[in-house]
Order: sequence, then C-alpha cells, then structure tokens
Amino acid sequence: MKLRLSTGLLFVLISARVFAQLPALERVEPAFWWAGMKNPKLQLIVHGDKIAERTVKLTYAGVKLTSVHQVENPNYLFLDLEISAAAKPGTFNIVFTKAGARDLTYKYVLNQRDRSANRAQGVTSKDLIYLLMPDRFANGDPSNDVVKGMRETGLNHDSMYSRHGGDIQGLMNHLDYLKELGITTVWMTPEIENDEPHASYHGYAVTDHYKTDPRYGTNALYKAYVEKCHSMGLKVIKDLVHNHAGTEGWTITDMPMKSWVHQWPKYTNSNFRYTALTDPNAPASDRKQMLDGWFDRRMADMNESNPYVQNYLTQNHIWWVEYAGVDGFRLDTYPYNDPAYMADWAQKVKAEYPHFSIFGEVLDSQVAFEAYFTQGNTVNRGFDTHLPGITDAALKDAIAEALNGKDSWDGGVNRLYSTLAQDFMYQNPMRNCIFLDNHDMSRFFSVVKEDFDKYKSGMAMLLTMRGIPQLYYGDEILMTGYSNPDGLVRADFSGGWPGDKSNKFTAAGRTDKENEAFNYVKTLANYRKSSSAIQTGKQMQYAPQNGIYVYFRYDAKSTVMIVYNSNDKTSTLNTDRFAERTVGFGSGVNVVTKDKVASINELTIPAKTTVVIELKK
Amino acid sequence: MKLRLSTGLLFVLISARVFAQLPALERVEPAFWWAGMKNPKLQLIVHGDKIAERTVKLTYAGVKLTSVHQVENPNYLFLDLEISAAAKPGTFNIVFTKAGARDLTYKYVLNQRDRSANRAQGVTSKDLIYLLMPDRFANGDPSNDVVKGMRETGLNHDSMYSRHGGDIQGLMNHLDYLKELGITTVWMTPEIENDEPHASYHGYAVTDHYKTDPRYGTNALYKAYVEKCHSMGLKVIKDLVHNHAGTEGWTITDMPMKSWVHQWPKYTNSNFRYTALTDPNAPASDRKQMLDGWFDRRMADMNESNPYVQNYLTQNHIWWVEYAGVDGFRLDTYPYNDPAYMADWAQKVKAEYPHFSIFGEVLDSQVAFEAYFTQGNTVNRGFDTHLPGITDAALKDAIAEALNGKDSWDGGVNRLYSTLAQDFMYQNPMRNCIFLDNHDMSRFFSVVKEDFDKYKSGMAMLLTMRGIPQLYYGDEILMTGYSNPDGLVRADFSGGWPGDKSNKFTAAGRTDKENEAFNYVKTLANYRKSSSAIQTGKQMQYAPQNGIYVYFRYDAKSTVMIVYNSNDKTSTLNTDRFAERTVGFGSGVNVVTKDKVASINELTIPAKTTVVIELKK
Repeated sequence: MKLRLSTGLLFVLISARVFAQLPALERVEPAFWWAGMKNPKLQLIVHGDKIAERTVKLTYAGVKLTSVHQVENPNYLFLDLEISAAAKPGTFNIVFTKAGARDLTYKYVLNQRDRSANRAQGVTSKDLIYLLMPDRFANGDPSNDVVKGMRETGLNHDSMYSRHGGDIQGLMNHLDYLKELGITTVWMTPEIENDEPHASYHGYAVTDHYKTDPRYGTNALYKAYVEKCHSMGLKVIKDLVHNHAGTEGWTITDMPMKSWVHQWPKYTNSNFRYTALTDPNAPASDRKQMLDGWFDRRMADMNESNPYVQNYLTQNHIWWVEYAGVDGFRLDTYPYNDPAYMADWAQKVKAEYPHFSIFGEVLDSQVAFEAYFTQGNTVNRGFDTHLPGITDAALKDAIAEALNGKDSWDGGVNRLYSTLAQDFMYQNPMRNCIFLDNHDMSRFFSVVKEDFDKYKSGMAMLLTMRGIPQLYYGDEILMTGYSNPDGLVRADFSGGWPGDKSNKFTAAGRTDKENEAFNYVKTLANYRKSSSAIQTGKQMQYAPQNGIYVYFRYDAKSTVMIVYNSNDKTSTLNTDRFAERTVGFGSGVNVVTKDKVASINELTIPAKTTVVIELKK
Repeated sequence: MKLRLSTGLLFVLISARVFAQLPALERVEPAFWWAGMKNPKLQLIVHGDKIAERTVKLTYAGVKLTSVHQVENPNYLFLDLEISAAAKPGTFNIVFTKAGARDLTYKYVLNQRDRSANRAQGVTSKDLIYLLMPDRFANGDPSNDVVKGMRETGLNHDSMYSRHGGDIQGLMNHLDYLKELGITTVWMTPEIENDEPHASYHGYAVTDHYKTDPRYGTNALYKAYVEKCHSMGLKVIKDLVHNHAGTEGWTITDMPMKSWVHQWPKYTNSNFRYTALTDPNAPASDRKQMLDGWFDRRMADMNESNPYVQNYLTQNHIWWVEYAGVDGFRLDTYPYNDPAYMADWAQKVKAEYPHFSIFGEVLDSQVAFEAYFTQGNTVNRGFDTHLPGITDAALKDAIAEALNGKDSWDGGVNRLYSTLAQDFMYQNPMRNCIFLDNHDMSRFFSVVKEDFDKYKSGMAMLLTMRGIPQLYYGDEILMTGYSNPDGLVRADFSGGWPGDKSNKFTAAGRTDKENEAFNYVKTLANYRKSSSAIQTGKQMQYAPQNGIYVYFRYDAKSTVMIVYNSNDKTSTLNTDRFAERTVGFGSGVNVVTKDKVASINELTIPAKTTVVIELKK
C-alpha cells in the first residue's frame, strides 16, 4: 500500500509504513529566501528518498542550523534555520551526508530584499477591486492551454467545469481596460498550481504552493504581472487557501506524517456551521467537524495545529509577498481554519509587511457571524483573530433585499439600514471587502432580475458605501447567470479569446445598454477616486422613511448625499431632517449625470433609483 | 392658560407663568421613608400652592436638610435630605414657614426596615413566571369595579379597550391555581394608578407613582398580595415604566419645570428605532427622536436626563421594594429610556437589594439588538447598561420559526439553533426572560395555528431552555387571539368573573383538550422545579440534521435530553453523535409520559414533537 491516493481518501496511511520511492533529493522549500527578514526563523522542508537517514550540515556567516527534525515519513527532514540580521545575501551549501553514500548538496540562496515603495502596499477603502477567474477572463497565451503531463489536459469552452484557456498573459493584455473602468486593484482567483484531474480551473485545490499553474504562466510571469500592475498604478491581491489542498499535491500523496492533514475514520465533510464555533456551549464534536471536516473529497483538510504545517503555509505566503510584491491577501474559507493558527499567521504577516491588507472569506447574512471573525471585534470575547476584514456578505444580502424586498419594518430598505446599524460589532468596517456578488453566487444583474434601475442603484451603493468595494468581472457589462451549479456564473469574458463573436473590452464591441452600464460604473468608480469623502470619509445613515433611504459620506473637504428610493413610483423627499449633514449646503451636483441640483431642500427621485449628489454651498 | 392639558400636548407651557391653584401643601413624596437604607440621600418633592415662597426647617437626629431647590414652577420645592446610618426610625416635622402666614407642617416618618428573608428575593432561571393583566384575570372585589371621581368609570366586558373589573383580590383568590400549575412567580402588568380617560386598563400610563389604582385595590392590599405570595412560596415581579407617564398625572398637569418631560415644537412620536442607538454613526436627530419622541400622545415622555426626574423615579421604585417586598422588576419600553440614567438607576437598585432581579422589555428578532441593552454584553462597546436581562424576543421569534418554518440552511429549526449560537453576545443569557408570547403580541396557540403538537413542542422548549421562562395567562388553557388590535389578546380568564359560563380555574370547568394542555404545562413546570439541570444547568445544542434539533441541559446531578422533530413525519434518530453528553447513560425516562426509554441509542420521534428525556444509566 502506498501513500499516494488517487481517490483523495487518506485514512489508512502511514501506519502501513510503506513510503514513496523518490529522487534522492527531490525538493527543498522554500527553495530560496531573503536576508533581512524581520523573523529570523526559517524552517525548510526537505523531501527525498529516505532523506531522514542523512545528517545535515551548513556553514554560512549569520546562519545557524538550530535543529533537524525527523518525522514519521523517512522521506522528510525539517531543518530549523536561524538567520541573523547580520546575514548577508549570498549562497551556501546544505549538505546531506550518510556513511557509504555520496553527499547530497542543495545550494541555498539568500536574496537581497527588494524594498521598492510600491510593493506590499495594502489595499484600502480608497481602492476598487476587480475579481476575476484567470481561466475565464482572457487567453493571452494559447501555447499554455494544454500542458502535457498535467492531469487535466482537456479544453472545452462549452463546459463550465472544463478549462477554457485563460491565463495571466490574457489579464496583462487587458489591464488598460480595468484602468479605464476605474479599477485600482486586481484580485484573481488562485493562479497557483492545481494539478487535479477534474475542475482544476477553479484554483482552490493547490498541488504545489510554490508554483504558478503552468496553464496560467510561470512564477516569473506572475511577478512580471504584479510589476506591470504596479507600474500602471494598480494593486494586486493574491488569493490564498490555508484550509485545504488538492489531494494530488506532493505533500499529500507522500505525507510527512499522518497528522499533516485532518484524518477521519471515514470520509467526513465539514458541517459548514460557523455557529459551531461561535456558540460557547457548542459540542466539541460539532466544532471539530466544522474545523477538521473536509470541505470536499478532492481537497485534503490541512491540520493547521501541526507546527510543521503552520510553518509551511506561513512561510509560503510570506515568500509570495517578498517574491512578487503583492499588496494584499484574500483568505479562502476563513472560518474553517484553526483560529489560533490564523491569528498567529496574521500577526506574522503584518510584522513583515505593516501596510499589508488581508480579508477573509466569511459568508453569512448576519453581521454578528461576520464580525465574529474580525480583528478587535466586540462579539468574540477574549480572542482576537487579528484578521483586519472579511467579505461583507451581510451587507451584500442587505443590498439585495433593499433592491428586491418589500418595504416593511424589517424588510426592504430597512434591512439594509438595520444591517449597517450593526457596524458597532466591527473594530473598523472600512476594512471589509464589500461586494454584490462573486464567483460563488448568482450574478448581481440576475439577482435584480435584470432590472436596470436596480442594477444602477446597487452599483451606486457598492461604489459609495463604507468598505473596500469589489466588482465581479463582467458585471460592468451586464453579464448574467445564476449559481447552482456555480459554474454558470463563471462564463468567459467575451473578447478574451481569439474568435470571440464580440469584444466587450471595447466600446464598439459592447451593446448600447452594456456601454450604459460600463459608463455608469466607470463614472462612479472614477468619481470615487477623486472623493476623499467616499474613499475615507465617515458614513452617516438616517432611518428610512416611506421607503426612502438616505446616507451621507463626508469629511472636512466634502459631503456626498446618497438617496435611494425603493418605491415603485417616483417619490419626493423633504430634506429638513438631514440638517445635521446638509447644514451649510444649499445645492449640489448629480455625480453621475453632472447635472446641477439647484436646491437640495426637496428632491424628486424616480422609482428604484439611487442618486449620488455632491453637496455644494 | 393653565398647565393642565387634557389633550396630552404639553408644548406651550411654563413660559406663560400661570400655575395651578392648589391646596397649601398638597403632597410630599415619598410620603415616608426608612431608616438604614444604603443610600443616605433622599430628595423629597413637595407640591403646594406657591410653596416655593416658604422656607423649610426640620430637626431630627441623624437627618440633615442639605439643600432646598426652587424650580420654575413656584408650586414646587425639592428638598435634599441626608439620612445618616445613625438615624433611628421615628417621626419628625418638616415645617414650611412664610412671614405673615401660618406654618405648614408635614409629619415625616422614617420606618423600621423589614428585613425578612423572603423579601426582594430575586427571580432567576429556577423560576417560572406567570404574566397576567389584573383587569382581565379575575374580579375579586366588585365594589371597586367603578370608582367615582376617576376619569374612566365605564365597565364593558364586550370591549377589549374598556375596563373589565379584574383586580388584585381576584388574583389573590386564584394563587392556588398558579401553585397547582407549577408557577413560582407572578408578573402582573402595572397595577399603579392610571387615571386616564381612555383604555386605562392597560396600566402603562401612570398618573400617581405612589398609588395602587383604586380599581385594583389599595397599597395595603398590594402589600398583602405580595405577602400572601411569599407565604405560599411565590415571588412577585413589579412592572415599571420609566419612559413615560399618563398625561393626567399631577406632575404632568402642573409640571415642576418645562424640562420635566421631553418637549417638542409639535407632537413628535418616537421613531421606534433601536438602530438609532446602536449605530455609532447615527444622526443625533434620529437618536433624539428615538429617546425623546413620545411613545403615544397620551403618555408624556419623561425627561430622564433631568436630575429631579431621576430622583423621583429611582426613589419611587426603591420605595415599592421596601414597602411591599417585591422580588423583581420588569422595565417597560427599555430602549426608549435615557441609557446613562438607566445604568445609574440599576446600580442604585442593586446596591440596596443585591439579590434583586431586573429585566427590560426589548423586542427585536436579532440577538445583537437584544444583547446590546444587557449588562456586560460584548457588543455595546465601552458602555455598561447594568441591566441583567431582557425579554428574549429573538428566541421567541426563533422558536416560532422552528415550529412553523420550513427546514432550510437558515430557516426552520436552524434559525433556532443559530439564534442560540449567538448567546456569546450576552454576559449571561440565563438572566433573560424567555417567552412565547405576551400581552402585546398574538397568543402562542394562534401563532402555531392551533396545532396541538406544535403547541406542546413550544411549551416544552419554553420550560427546558436557558433563561427565566414566562408564561402568558391563559396559554395553559389554549386561549387564542391575534394582536392587531392588541386588545384581542387580552381576553378575560374564564371563571374569573361571577356568572362566567365556565370556570377554567378548575379541571371540571376545562374541556378535555384544555386539561391536556394544562396538565402538559403542569407536568413540565413541576418537573422543572425538581431538576437542577433545567433550572441552573448548562445548555448544549447540536447542529440540526435532517430537521431534528437536539439540546441538553445538564449538571453534575443529571442530564436532560430534548429532541425536537420539525419534520412532518415521524423520524428516527441515531444518537451516536451526541456521545459527549450521553456518555455514561444508556436509557432514560420521558419526563412528560413517565415512560421508560429502554435505550437511547436510537429514538423515534413523531412529527412536530418535542420529547424531554431525563437520561439514566
């Protein structure tokens, strides 16, 4: 019996003590590192045939080998290095010796750190994120569509679960489109190697933490992509998965030890219940199933309480910031991870990169369950996650209800109001990633049943509310689709492939209505860039009356008034009660139409419409 | 122009400087006090014709008159007394003098405190509260049905908004019924004088804070009622209203000062938005309207930031505990009160009566908005309300959804589970008053559409969940009614009036089904009394599976397993996953039927049924 498991079921493993046959020194990770990191400690994972039988030596000024760990699988060694502040960039040999065998030598490089200003900049409420799936956005390099030797080589445009051939080069070719739209930050779903036999396009089943998927490009291309973004004034978010890894990854098929992943007597799914974590009286078994249960049969659930796993993941993530200079992380399936480890992880990342941004995927319609996972929140007594922000699904659901729901005490626009009135649970809701949809849910234009007024209202809210707004690719050109199955919301961006019927990257390739949508988003996105009130100002909302919801963004420089009429008919609004924010102003400018609003004393708002008015004297 | 306002609109008042013509010394309140209170300070309110023109003297060992306050209305004086620990019970004169006029003398009594053990005992999760409206429960004294000189004298059984004649004596006559049912605590809606012209039966528009409404009885009878309860092992909750008072009250018709109540340029309702308080970014105007807006035209909104109002209310409430020995307070319309004052109030009450219980009326379906108002909660950053518990409306709504809703990720029984999983926001949810309905909402049996299985399930949850359970009068005999208008849920308890067609206080007067309901509640209520696990034990709930929800109450002595099958058909439950709580047990006893459950390995539960099983070896 072999540790390699084609079924993704890992439950009868190391006890059999038959390990993989490997090259004598298959890999050392991280393959290289940097001098001058804040944390002097580094743990190398070494994988090779019976490598544990060898002794290890290294000699380099400022670098000490403090410990060598043998583990259950003799094909592994873990080496603890201590790299002092005095260590200079350079190369040294790590030598693995064994009586009667030839020495094995690994040339380890400590690089010079790149301290350019536009690296690891952080993504804030000043930004606008564009989320895309690299397989579905644009194909810039047809030569990598099919990579021989990988487990999935099929290419099928017509299947939402096959690969379509999009890649990093395709994205790089269209960064000007994003700039035109007013985007400031690109978040691509994971471009990391996913050498899985099925649905490998989605990217959340990593098989090599240090390698860009060859079908998307190379590590060097990824670095070039980040640098191109930075040179264009764009930032980059990298999408990370701590919780699980593809069952075909090398650390999974030949695991260092049984406790590398969460083991169960038989396959056990997570129960997907955040509540099992939040409930202080929850059974240990429910909590264990939430955290240690598998997200999917094809994704091994990493045991993040294992210190070797902890080091492996944390160093890998820091490696990517230092290597490529990315500006922020989005953390997949955040609540499924070990809480203590994730808090430690966040502190280590922030210690290296003080301006770095991190937000975790948390998807619940209730603020309490979202806030529970955030740094310095008020609800999670006595434990700080150190996670700056989350994906604000409570706000997303509330916006949908404000647009589609019926006005009532709890419903319609009152739910949006009431959701934002729970911001008191966050230390700072401005760090939340706010959104209308993403790759796991129905597209926003479908959510509002292709009602263009509602669409515009939702976009106006997204682009003027507190938080870091995120747009899902294609929403700006009215792409539609319902999740379930989720593939249907992951269609190709038309124009990204040679031979596409139309090229939506250009005004000429878009229909009039698509251009209207594009220009609406573009206008607000670009206005946003110029408005410190919207980027970083305070937000004040008023209790809705008669189905009309009013909020303000304001700072010392300017005040923006946003009015949403949720009614099915045009409504007139007397603005006396907003005096606290309108004092000193008498008129305004409609930010979208650029029309002057001669008097703000009374406003007439069409049905289902949101107007954004910058107030003037 | 006179301060007296029959319309309840108080907005053009004191500036006119024409004040009421009164007896020379109309009243002094509190009319008497006690020696040996923890707080040495006492502020007397004195009301009499131009009393402010007089100087005040008193001489008594241990009592100092530290200050005399003249206020806008010359018919008032406020006297600050300091009563030292050395002051003995006794009587002293307070003399009001004026050159050329006869002295006015008030004989002030300092009573001996009654330190009997069964006074101010506190109401806890060991108790079961019975909530009733005194006008609608039983008429024990027909001679007080109509009291001449009061503003409402009509008696009309057929109108839900007229008086029906129930009274304290009626309740006293039926305490044995409550004992039989397993009740431990009586909460009567306010019995305080409400000398209002319309709908005075409801009791929330006080016109004399120191006087039992003559149609319910006298202060002496109220005290006798409390003493009778205590002698029978029952406790008493007094229902208080801080926020507002009837517009016909003497402090309202001739106000001490304009700022005695919240004044508005024109009548302004509260906006009834808790969110205006919780939202840290809410406009001051929304917050002000929430707190200072009137609850109703007929109820003047007390200005609780006025120190005279603060002293008046706080002393009145302490007076009632000391006078009658009540065991707990329920606070009406809690969120509408001034938060800083209410925190101070609670600390003062608890300083005098360390075991006393207090819970506030907070009615929201979201835990965050309920918890916000509680002592030591985790959500209301930096401000402690010192309010031990609230009326747990979030749990009430969740139970209704568990019984009536459809099983889904968020719905049906999962909402109940998810609601309890938010208990982390409370310092101690065991102090919450839990309930299925009350006098302001549809009756529980109507909420479940008179489905008897659902009714029993709800009652089983009420009587086994964490918190202090409260039953609404008549629910135990299947009384029905939908609120809106609310009078319809305030019907008479049949048998409480001479000539009633049936007497539901007796088994003979109840139908078979009513007896079945009564006996079901009685069995669980009396079992509850004997079960420390249910009274004070921990609660552990499991994530629902297949529409079945399981929770446990347990302590070192016993474990009770409660299983609710929300499905429309009988379901079988394998109990392996509950091992954390069932370890050491193999069988059980059905608490209601007393049937032995031979094995707890597998349970078969009928549709919509809740079984309560005490586990056995």
